[in-house]
Amino acid sequence: MRIDILTIFPEMFQGPFTESIIKRAVSKGLAEIHLHNIRDYATNKHRNVDDYVYGGSAGMVMMVQPIADCIDKLKSERDYDEVIFLTPDGEMLNQHLANRLSLKGNLIFLCGHYKGIDERIREHYITLEVSIGDYVLSGGELAAAVLADSIIRLIPGVLSDETSALSDSFQDGLLSPPVYTRPADYKGWKVPEVLLSGNEKEIVHWNYLKSLERTRQRRPGLLGESEDH
Amino acid sequence: MRIDILTIFPEMFQGPFTESIIKRAVSKGLAEIHLHNIRDYATNKHRNVDDYVYGGSAGMVMMVQPIADCIDKLKSERDYDEVIFLTPDGEMLNQHLANRLSLKGNLIFLCGHYKGIDERIREHYITLEVSIGDYVLSGGELAAAVLADSIIRLIPGVLSDETSALSDSFQDGLLSPPVYTRPADYKGWKVPEVLLSGNEKEIVHWNYLKSLERTRQRRPGLLGESEDH
Repeated sequence: MRIDILTIFPEMFQGPFTESIIKRAVSKGLAEIHLHNIRDYATNKHRNVDDYVYGGSAGMVMMVQPIADCIDKLKSERDYDEVIFLTPDGEMLNQHLANRLSLKGNLIFLCGHYKGIDERIREHYITLEVSIGDYVLSGGELAAAVLADSIIRLIPGVLSDETSALSDSFQDGLLSPPVYTRPADYKGWKVPEVLLSGNEKEIVHWNYLKSLERTRQRRPGLLGESEDH
Repeated sequence: MRIDILTIFPEMFQGPFTESIIKRAVSKGLAEIHLHNIRDYATNKHRNVDDYVYGGSAGMVMMVQPIADCIDKLKSERDYDEVIFLTPDGEMLNQHLANRLSLKGNLIFLCGHYKGIDERIREHYITLEVSIGDYVLSGGELAAAVLADSIIRLIPGVLSDETSALSDSFQDGLLSPPVYTRPADYKGWKVPEVLLSGNEKEIVHWNYLKSLERTRQRRPGLLGESEDH
């Protein structure tokens, strides 16, 4: 998988992409991430990438030209499966969408800033708009990092233990059960006895019941039940 | 506001917290962020912070002791409004929760990794569990960065133009209208005429109608309408 990220703050990806799972995926050759500074494509004298919003309200808007030129250049070099804009009014990211995108070859992620990007980019270039949640961030960079992480960890071979991704929350429509590790007794707080019993059948059953209980309490919608009870 | 972040990958925050809005809030003295490496609190010989999950399934679990000792130390130094664990089965982050947390003084964010943290930490230390969305990430670091960004940008004085945060998507229960900037005509793609008219009343009305239309199309739930139509 190849992901091209268009941003005016490429430095924001330094930590997220040089540590942890993404680093491992890149070093194993399972993913490539290319950062593009939109400012490098600005053709005006001051290399501005933003300008005042039409209509007089507060805030700046990212201009069409630098983004359009950057996407045009990338598309002239290879085909892309999706050109994704990260925006709070996009399609809500969930595990299903992450699974679907993890099967793609080449993706472009566009990070907005300020009051957003000129609508003409959305109309003419963007094929998919994705939101990571119903809240506003100061820019699309963290959303792009979240989307990249959620996708890349699903590529086979990225996680060291493949069952790890399969037993994640949401993959089977249930939240994960509580987990414990040593010591069995920490200052009087004890691990549930069944987990120490060695009885595999009972442990599997207990985990299933706890998953169900937690899902019912916290995300009844995943069970097709009303979210407000 | 002071945020203490507990993590085993403090380097992941380097980009997100040294650029953009968070950097500005910190340099203006409006927010303090302190990173704590959980590994520094491990007392065992190899400074391990994780161990095998009880019950035999795959994956590692973060141990009680290093996390407990780090939180105990912080709580001995000052009072905290919330001790927050970032987890996909937590309360879903939305703009309302971000607003509420932006009014707090001291917060602890705990980032999990691997299959999660020992449940006893969640029972005895955590006061609020937050999810940034229904998907799985390789760790809590990006979620903590997202939560910090969503909160810190709401602190008065952080954004250069205070109306910017007030006119964000969700703050008035509606998505933002489309935005445009110069040029008015880009390769034949034109800005809607009303925005160039200078008629403020018409522009406000147009923006409102577009906000409503976009919200109805993309997030009918925000209008109290069914999400599936």
